[in-house]
Amino acid sequence: MEKLQRNERIAALIKILSDQPNQIFTFNHFVENFNCAKSTLSEDVELLKGIVAKLELGAVETISGAAGGVKYIPTLGKEKIKQILSNLCTSLAEPSRILSGGFLYMTDIIYNPSVVDDIGKIFAGQFIDKDIHYVVTVETKGIPIAMMTARYLNVPLIIVRRDSKVTEGSSVNINYVSASSRRIQTMSLSRRAIKKNSKVLFVDDFMKGGGTVRGIIELMKEFESEVEGIAVLISTKEPIKKFINEYFSLIILNEVDEQESIIDLKPGIKFD
Amino acid sequence: MEKLQRNERIAALIKILSDQPNQIFTFNHFVENFNCAKSTLSEDVELLKGIVAKLELGAVETISGAAGGVKYIPTLGKEKIKQILSNLCTSLAEPSRILSGGFLYMTDIIYNPSVVDDIGKIFAGQFIDKDIHYVVTVETKGIPIAMMTARYLNVPLIIVRRDSKVTEGSSVNINYVSASSRRIQTMSLSRRAIKKNSKVLFVDDFMKGGGTVRGIIELMKEFESEVEGIAVLISTKEPIKKFINEYFSLIILNEVDEQESIIDLKPGIKFD
Repeated sequence: MEKLQRNERIAALIKILSDQPNQIFTFNHFVENFNCAKSTLSEDVELLKGIVAKLELGAVETISGAAGGVKYIPTLGKEKIKQILSNLCTSLAEPSRILSGGFLYMTDIIYNPSVVDDIGKIFAGQFIDKDIHYVVTVETKGIPIAMMTARYLNVPLIIVRRDSKVTEGSSVNINYVSASSRRIQTMSLSRRAIKKNSKVLFVDDFMKGGGTVRGIIELMKEFESEVEGIAVLISTKEPIKKFINEYFSLIILNEVDEQESIIDLKPGIKFD
Repeated sequence: MEKLQRNERIAALIKILSDQPNQIFTFNHFVENFNCAKSTLSEDVELLKGIVAKLELGAVETISGAAGGVKYIPTLGKEKIKQILSNLCTSLAEPSRILSGGFLYMTDIIYNPSVVDDIGKIFAGQFIDKDIHYVVTVETKGIPIAMMTARYLNVPLIIVRRDSKVTEGSSVNINYVSASSRRIQTMSLSRRAIKKNSKVLFVDDFMKGGGTVRGIIELMKEFESEVEGIAVLISTKEPIKKFINEYFSLIILNEVDEQESIIDLKPGIKFD
């Protein structure tokens, strides 16, 4: 390839790096592709670091050593997170969302790519230092959010099924009790899905009593693996005593008042 | 904000545009955010157009008129698509994928964010000129691919369920006959999910006889909407006569020979 100008190299760098978040690219990869000197590339990377920091577009990090290189981290600034959360709360509190039985219609939000993209970035940002090997979710509604979280963490997504499927080969099945309905439910995951001794992040759209999470923790034990973190979009205030204690919840749902058509919710993150 | 340098503006432009593919941003949006003259921004955009074209990083387009502005189109070059397809075929043809009954284990591929990202880009590129309003899929395995396609088309994702759920309000349910198993199956979609007179793109991971697609076409009629396109990752060669005629299939599966451990498949796109 002919020599590129600095403008061109910087644009290509940020595009390629941010298309594969949390993925280390060697300096040589770019030196060869851009047909430039390593010192020139180093200058480009330093410039780019400054640009993304100044404009709050995430972070560009260099890693030294044999496995070293440069990668893009999709962190969001505090103000941006505040704004996303505020928009989410406003949208989720629209009274027209109330369904009979006090349920909330929210698939238009949790299947909306640009909303889900933001939530995935926030979740990934929370757990990016935890050395997560897989993002795990249970079908169906949490899949888009889990998918974007996995994308930003640069790890595979695992979807636990409600029953075993012929297309997944031999599977591990467990039964567990749903905390809210007290009913027995089943989870199924292909034996091939997860390597032993893995750390997983569980992601879901909604958590009430935490029964599903407890089921996932048990299922992961069958794979000799561990739930290292739990991230949910919405958790309910009640019951206060859940099956699990530590989790990251973006929004807390206090109450849905069907009679008065009021949805009472608030951000689950405190900003100092 | 203090004045930015050209380097900084170009890096921010490509990052912001490609983070929200197929979304029109007004020139004023950037003029205000970058604190620069409109003529300066126009020069930046022209420069960026050249850069992404030269480096095959997609396309930057300007739209004139009142609703005009600039947007990023995530098209992939022919060589890149060829390479993605070739890698996919190699990976899918690994004999260890053969499950009892001649099924293929492929969730590790269709849940892998970086693979799914590429497939979503290819699907979106095929249908970006079709004025699609929604991407529709049926739970579960096609969801990640459908999600990324929706992201690159910048339209909402719709997930059709296998039965009606209390969290989706009143729903439209239809029964249809699976082409391969001849069994009666159900599809359910919330009444709120789709606006009348919409055009949808149906996305799935696998198609055999096309019964599911026919079910979706029928379901969309209930919403006075139309299936404008069909995109699947893999379709089987047999039966040659499917319930539907026109579809875009990335890979054609000729045969799975369980005895000989051979998976015979080929790219579904012809490159001149």
